[in-house]
Amino acid sequence: MEIIKIFDTTLRDGEQSPGASMNTEEKIKLALQLERLGVDVMEAGFAAASPGDFEAISRISEVVQNSAICSLARAIPKDIERAAKALEKAKQKRIHTFIATSPIHMEFKLKMQPSEVIKRAVEAVSLARSLCEDVEFSCEDACRSDIGFLKEVALAVIEAGAKTLNLPDTVGYRLPQELGNIIKELKSCVGDLAVLSVHCHNDLGLAVANSLAGIQNGARQLECTINGLGERAGNTALEEVVMILKTRKDIFGNLDTRINTKEIYASSKLVADITGIRPQPNKAIVGKNAFAHESGIHQDGMLKNRETYEIMSASDVGIPQDNGLVLGKHSGRAAFKDKLASLGFIELTQDALDSAFEKFKVLCDKKKEVYDEDIRALLTEEVTKIPQVFELLALQISSDSNGVPYAAISIQKDGISRIDAAIGNGSVDAILKTIDRISGYNGVLKDYKVEAVSEGKDALAKVVVKAEFEQNKPAFIGHGLHLDTLQATAKAYIGALNSYLSMRSLIIK
Amino acid sequence: MEIIKIFDTTLRDGEQSPGASMNTEEKIKLALQLERLGVDVMEAGFAAASPGDFEAISRISEVVQNSAICSLARAIPKDIERAAKALEKAKQKRIHTFIATSPIHMEFKLKMQPSEVIKRAVEAVSLARSLCEDVEFSCEDACRSDIGFLKEVALAVIEAGAKTLNLPDTVGYRLPQELGNIIKELKSCVGDLAVLSVHCHNDLGLAVANSLAGIQNGARQLECTINGLGERAGNTALEEVVMILKTRKDIFGNLDTRINTKEIYASSKLVADITGIRPQPNKAIVGKNAFAHESGIHQDGMLKNRETYEIMSASDVGIPQDNGLVLGKHSGRAAFKDKLASLGFIELTQDALDSAFEKFKVLCDKKKEVYDEDIRALLTEEVTKIPQVFELLALQISSDSNGVPYAAISIQKDGISRIDAAIGNGSVDAILKTIDRISGYNGVLKDYKVEAVSEGKDALAKVVVKAEFEQNKPAFIGHGLHLDTLQATAKAYIGALNSYLSMRSLIIK
Repeated sequence: MEIIKIFDTTLRDGEQSPGASMNTEEKIKLALQLERLGVDVMEAGFAAASPGDFEAISRISEVVQNSAICSLARAIPKDIERAAKALEKAKQKRIHTFIATSPIHMEFKLKMQPSEVIKRAVEAVSLARSLCEDVEFSCEDACRSDIGFLKEVALAVIEAGAKTLNLPDTVGYRLPQELGNIIKELKSCVGDLAVLSVHCHNDLGLAVANSLAGIQNGARQLECTINGLGERAGNTALEEVVMILKTRKDIFGNLDTRINTKEIYASSKLVADITGIRPQPNKAIVGKNAFAHESGIHQDGMLKNRETYEIMSASDVGIPQDNGLVLGKHSGRAAFKDKLASLGFIELTQDALDSAFEKFKVLCDKKKEVYDEDIRALLTEEVTKIPQVFELLALQISSDSNGVPYAAISIQKDGISRIDAAIGNGSVDAILKTIDRISGYNGVLKDYKVEAVSEGKDALAKVVVKAEFEQNKPAFIGHGLHLDTLQATAKAYIGALNSYLSMRSLIIK
Repeated sequence: MEIIKIFDTTLRDGEQSPGASMNTEEKIKLALQLERLGVDVMEAGFAAASPGDFEAISRISEVVQNSAICSLARAIPKDIERAAKALEKAKQKRIHTFIATSPIHMEFKLKMQPSEVIKRAVEAVSLARSLCEDVEFSCEDACRSDIGFLKEVALAVIEAGAKTLNLPDTVGYRLPQELGNIIKELKSCVGDLAVLSVHCHNDLGLAVANSLAGIQNGARQLECTINGLGERAGNTALEEVVMILKTRKDIFGNLDTRINTKEIYASSKLVADITGIRPQPNKAIVGKNAFAHESGIHQDGMLKNRETYEIMSASDVGIPQDNGLVLGKHSGRAAFKDKLASLGFIELTQDALDSAFEKFKVLCDKKKEVYDEDIRALLTEEVTKIPQVFELLALQISSDSNGVPYAAISIQKDGISRIDAAIGNGSVDAILKTIDRISGYNGVLKDYKVEAVSEGKDALAKVVVKAEFEQNKPAFIGHGLHLDTLQATAKAYIGALNSYLSMRSLIIK
């Protein structure tokens, strides 16, 4: 049995998606989930990019035990030193340094000769090796590089101490056969001197097929993200490649990963909740409809023999099977805790448990039917909570199609409550303007989304707000969960503001 | 130059996605857009499945001129006759009949011997050919069928008159090499006697790569959907394969499609708006971020030379390039019409144009900045409008976190207005319950989503509601667009009710 190492970069390349920025607490939660999922390496950030990235890598290094923690670093001494510093407390650590090797990148972006590029790469790897045992080197835009030059770089950086050689298809340009051939060529050149790694982008919808072609030609590390998150059309989706290897054991019998596939669904949900970027319903493996059979012909077939239309089962990826009613107002704390465990929420602090149980009881009083999804939403709110600088106390709103909506809101800060009112162009506008008036900040709304958590008119509303509180600085995401959409909206906007305040000191342009 | 025929099945296999059902007017709008996009064949439905499908196929047959219209039909005389009847008025028509050929489907679902399956297939094709010149036959679950048996079926149905032989990977099980080999085998068997067709599902994330492998091995028809819509993880995404062929002309130099790629974005938007199923931001080609560059390193490279990080341009797929401010309150009707044309809204009726212009003027009075996206949303509302049985006149709502939300709503039907009020567990609940009280219908909310159309606190809210008005009958989608989320919610729910009422007579279980 040969193991394909899973190198997850949701926290680095994934976070690079427009609007996917996470705060430190969220990154730590996600890192712990990735550890449960069983990734071999997690790229926790790009230490030199910002103090926020540095802090996240350094705190993740303290808490994660069973996955190697990695920081990205350009082939520049200060980047590599920052990476090493951020990784100081990690039990297993890796520095991942890179430079571009394609003609177009060398000429236009780097403005460097190929010989200078090799020199810089070797120096970077040597420095990294002096600070860290495990060093990975990436030839950025490898798949548009000259194959002879790639081999030259490969041998040089391996000689300098790189243990993993990553060959990214940075712009998502290659077809599977082509990518397979590149890996084959490099494999024949480097043999077992280093682990070959693939890192594919999905611009043409081929990231997964390309990664597979890489594996079939000798790559033994796969760089990927949960939900295929990432810049532009994103990266290779971890869940898809892992489930291909598992479902098609007849073909890949001697290859496997260390991933616990039953943690896939929980990981996907957490990434979606934190980033507000939800997989489309028809996303393979983790989409809402991935295991749903709608047409009469299919349903009939499924009843006769599941395998007529199903090649893997929802429980393989940890999708809870019981989607009916769950608990009622008479359920006790023990039953509630059992249900949480079945939904993948383990290792909760007593505080988080108590707080969730209290909210659950309040919900039972108001809502006719409480579903698994409601409970999951309550818990996700608990585990992704950030320090509340501002806290919503009360909200009144009135809207009339023949008049102007107005809101009155009471907010607490440092134990002192303030109330004020404002009008708006709509209910949401009125709420956000009132909050601005009280808080003294002036947020620019970049995105606003509401979803019903489950079915029924009285479903919990989950609101995701993305707002920018300083011009040209990252936008922050806030979440709000409430039976009333408008209350949820206020909570979400205040959440985004709190997230901004908790990260403000760590943002640089 | 060889042409790969594009067989779009958004209206049939796409509509089979849970929750993607469309009403007849929506299907006609989409069919006309698919015609503009340049698909060779559009599968408009499954005539025997319901009177709604029959009506949609028959009305699409009347209006579409430049694409062939196709109906699906089981290998059963009454299905085939219904299909022929629905297609009567089509300028170019095709009947697509199918039966399963895999051991598991024949044994458990069909409970038929292979010889009976062949007999049934041949009879179906012969009957279809007696009613229609152009007949396609599909071996359902072809990719899990015995290859020898597939060849036998293939030769028999071609002998009976099938001109296209489709080999679906019904359960999304195959890897690209495997699918390529199946097509190669069949190609060597049938030669030029029929066009070979691929129809892939994306359960393992490989639909696009598999389709490509099919094309590389001799398939000359591609079955696909816009946005990869479809049951479970969906079908091959039309936009991805088409853009691969275009972007990698160096490899596929002698192959092309008749698709006008500049209509891809408009088609994607229309499907998303009609079904409420939006591609994730990191969806290749049509996702919101597909052409967005976030990291500093990438932005720097893009400024130096676009090709450092870009292999195709957003304008190739018709994404409007001017995303800034557009028109103001002083803009005239001519400028507005020009803007609409640049957004792809052509061939509007004078009524739709007038109504949109009026709404635009109202919006300008209320909203600080009017974006392209706002105008697109207004227009989409116009073109997807359905007969208004009920019409919202006025809405008042009041919500207090220490009390119970209540709404008062006035609705008109047949020129008579009625007003009533109700309380709810949240603002949305109060609104929907009030509407139920007035209309006399009792809808079950299956899904509820709100999105901001553009940036800013005063963005237009786009609400999508999915509601079931009869138990175990399809749910209907309604859309609402308004500066106030709650007004948009009321409009959307009433829209779903109107859609249900317009289709009620055509639903069967």
